Amino acid sequence: MPDGQIKAQTLKGFRDFLPAQMVLRQHVIGTLRHVFEQHGFEPLETPVLEYAETLEGKYGDDERLLYRFTDHGDRRVGMRYDLTVPLARVVGQYVNTLAFPFKRYQIQPVWRADRPQKGRYREFYQCDVDIVGTSSPLADAECVSLYYEGFRDLGFVNYQTLLNSRKLLTAIGIYAGAGEQAGSIFRAIDKLAKVGETGVIGEMIAGGVSIEASRRAIDIVKMSQGRRDQSDDLKLIANLRQPFADIPVGIAGLDELEAMIKLLPDFGVPDRYYKLDLTLARGLNYYTGAVFEVVSQDIQIGSLGGGGRYDELVGMFSGRSIPTVGASFGLERIIDVIEEAKIGGPLPRTTSEVFVTVFNSAMLASALAITGELRAAGINTEVAYEPDSGLKKQLRYAGNKGISLAIIEGPDEQAKGEVMLREIGESGDKDAIPNQTTVRRDEIVAAVKVRLAKP
Amino acid sequence: MPDGQIKAQTLKGFRDFLPAQMVLRQHVIGTLRHVFEQHGFEPLETPVLEYAETLEGKYGDDERLLYRFTDHGDRRVGMRYDLTVPLARVVGQYVNTLAFPFKRYQIQPVWRADRPQKGRYREFYQCDVDIVGTSSPLADAECVSLYYEGFRDLGFVNYQTLLNSRKLLTAIGIYAGAGEQAGSIFRAIDKLAKVGETGVIGEMIAGGVSIEASRRAIDIVKMSQGRRDQSDDLKLIANLRQPFADIPVGIAGLDELEAMIKLLPDFGVPDRYYKLDLTLARGLNYYTGAVFEVVSQDIQIGSLGGGGRYDELVGMFSGRSIPTVGASFGLERIIDVIEEAKIGGPLPRTTSEVFVTVFNSAMLASALAITGELRAAGINTEVAYEPDSGLKKQLRYAGNKGISLAIIEGPDEQAKGEVMLREIGESGDKDAIPNQTTVRRDEIVAAVKVRLAKP
Repeated sequence: MPDGQIKAQTLKGFRDFLPAQMVLRQHVIGTLRHVFEQHGFEPLETPVLEYAETLEGKYGDDERLLYRFTDHGDRRVGMRYDLTVPLARVVGQYVNTLAFPFKRYQIQPVWRADRPQKGRYREFYQCDVDIVGTSSPLADAECVSLYYEGFRDLGFVNYQTLLNSRKLLTAIGIYAGAGEQAGSIFRAIDKLAKVGETGVIGEMIAGGVSIEASRRAIDIVKMSQGRRDQSDDLKLIANLRQPFADIPVGIAGLDELEAMIKLLPDFGVPDRYYKLDLTLARGLNYYTGAVFEVVSQDIQIGSLGGGGRYDELVGMFSGRSIPTVGASFGLERIIDVIEEAKIGGPLPRTTSEVFVTVFNSAMLASALAITGELRAAGINTEVAYEPDSGLKKQLRYAGNKGISLAIIEGPDEQAKGEVMLREIGESGDKDAIPNQTTVRRDEIVAAVKVRLAKP
Repeated sequence: MPDGQIKAQTLKGFRDFLPAQMVLRQHVIGTLRHVFEQHGFEPLETPVLEYAETLEGKYGDDERLLYRFTDHGDRRVGMRYDLTVPLARVVGQYVNTLAFPFKRYQIQPVWRADRPQKGRYREFYQCDVDIVGTSSPLADAECVSLYYEGFRDLGFVNYQTLLNSRKLLTAIGIYAGAGEQAGSIFRAIDKLAKVGETGVIGEMIAGGVSIEASRRAIDIVKMSQGRRDQSDDLKLIANLRQPFADIPVGIAGLDELEAMIKLLPDFGVPDRYYKLDLTLARGLNYYTGAVFEVVSQDIQIGSLGGGGRYDELVGMFSGRSIPTVGASFGLERIIDVIEEAKIGGPLPRTTSEVFVTVFNSAMLASALAITGELRAAGINTEVAYEPDSGLKKQLRYAGNKGISLAIIEGPDEQAKGEVMLREIGESGDKDAIPNQTTVRRDEIVAAVKVRLAKP
């Protein structure tokens, strides 16, 4: 490297998104945006920088991960850490402008000075949908339907939204008689699938729960096993009414869950895409009602998304409770999974669809005319910039870029009123015999559309 | 405000984009993205934070506007200040991965600690298109065609891309004999339309240019007046060959401009959308060849975009010259102008298209069925979350949000197999007589599509 030249590098935990990654990211974001807008959610964007005091005191121990500094005007500022605190600020700031229930989606990067590792970045996108200002179970059910439709449209097949309620978990603690050790119960129960019944009881006891309370808790949780369809969810809710008879928070939780689950068929969510699961705990200090988590049954990874009802948080800048339910999509993980498991079939590496070669300078005007016709027909088309560089070099460029189709018009073709359509393989297989057909010049748009399977 | 509650506020120069603004922003960004992708440009995104040394030394005096701080690992970092330095870094870092010519577009926010004023923000979006790695005049011409198509698709009518070349400006300075005062000539010439011939000469003399040199310069520049169509641009180029006969940089500039201008009709750019303008100076310390600037002839504002060829900048991390030409769209100004001048006709205030009311709880399942049918037909539809809140309140919400169409189905309509379609005015005109029609329940999708003018 020459003297004085700065090394071209990115900070650890930060990524450039080159075109092939951008194609995938735009596909995923576009698909989810479409689902959100179909459901009447509106877009929101907030600034990267906020007053530090807007962010401070909201993230507990993780606050140390905030990027904070002092700006040119000696203001202490911080970079967006999540999309929930900015939502709460927006709700407080524009309470007289917004129409409530406020249904917004927000897809923006956030920053956390965390230790980078596989799948964990210092700059990453979050994708949140929230319904602010209603306690209606319709809102909770709509969140579940967003998960169903979002993952369906992305090409996922075996996935499910697990459902539970913070109120049921509280009721289980009360029913078991765990007192202040209730938290140990939830944390242990969450691992039932992993460590089994005796493992869970062991964890509870280690967490200070009495053996009797542990058994009573596990007996309740075991009632949720063996689910076949929605009727089992509703049966479970009915069966829990007896043990929770004297626990008002439990009855309230059952009423809310029942109302939500009964609505799911009306929202078009098929039976197998959700399940009441009493072991689902999920961020207890945050949620106040229903909780959701999306899991993939094909791929061994953590959750693909999660959310729930949190009635006490969004009002933090408004000085009152504002009932809110939200669904967060784990955008970076979704993108990683789609890429690794090739979900939804292969995507092109580029947004470019057709490459028009230029045989020589004399053929340039004709090549530009073809280019213009294809573009006008809605086909992403580029033309060779170096007319006299030769077909071989031009086709190599198109192959490197990942363009699948090239158009070749030499003087012979032009004389016959024809052009050649050549399918370009990946740049690697240069010995492959080119798949090439001749089409009439005036049928070029139709022929390209057939090749690209475009309407 | 209760004790201890933080005030909900944004930093000066930073903006929230609420849904109505987002609709406009997404429309503008989506329209430009479409044009870029039609031309084979690929998306790129780079991180908000870079090593400070990547950014330092690139922006001259404006470097003081950089947001810089020390991160958790004691690294000096800076926030993205423009999209050109990150492009140069990407080109240096992935030189073996990218296909050249690398045609990328990038639409991301940047940060400058500038004094906020009308139309100037500390956080704002830039929108850049660049072609890296070719000197071909086809690339320059394609940039002009992007301006033409981009503004056309946004609904602009009277606009023009002014064309010039840094090389012609250099040649004018040499021809005039201005020596080291050449810079004064360009800065003065740039104001010809504003201050007239004597004003320009006065400025030149004040800038240290001799009166003879000033006259020689102005005589050249005046040759570009009275342009009717492309033939006048080409005539002007031909006429300049005599005075520049012994100035090689001038002849090179004329050759390049002539090649680019002759290509514009092949790129489909009509005559009235561009003009050779010898007074266009534009950031002389940066550009090496053609320069462009888009001006609106309807609205009195600065330029809507600008760019040109800058062959020495993108190679700064690569240790060599990399010929590059780019077109920058003034996104924030474009958005402001579209909003103020209502260019392209009115946009909705929301992405939501239809609101389905719920007459009462007994009618909920039917309302959800209608909602689902409309969504499945590609119509952005939301349903009232409070079934028993009454039609009046529900319709007020829809009006406040800006949804133009509501569906009402009461028991009477249901018995007759009908629903009502109501057009909702802006929330203000609550005395307006509702425009309402009855349609058959099984024709609801078709009827809504007609109302929304959807295919």
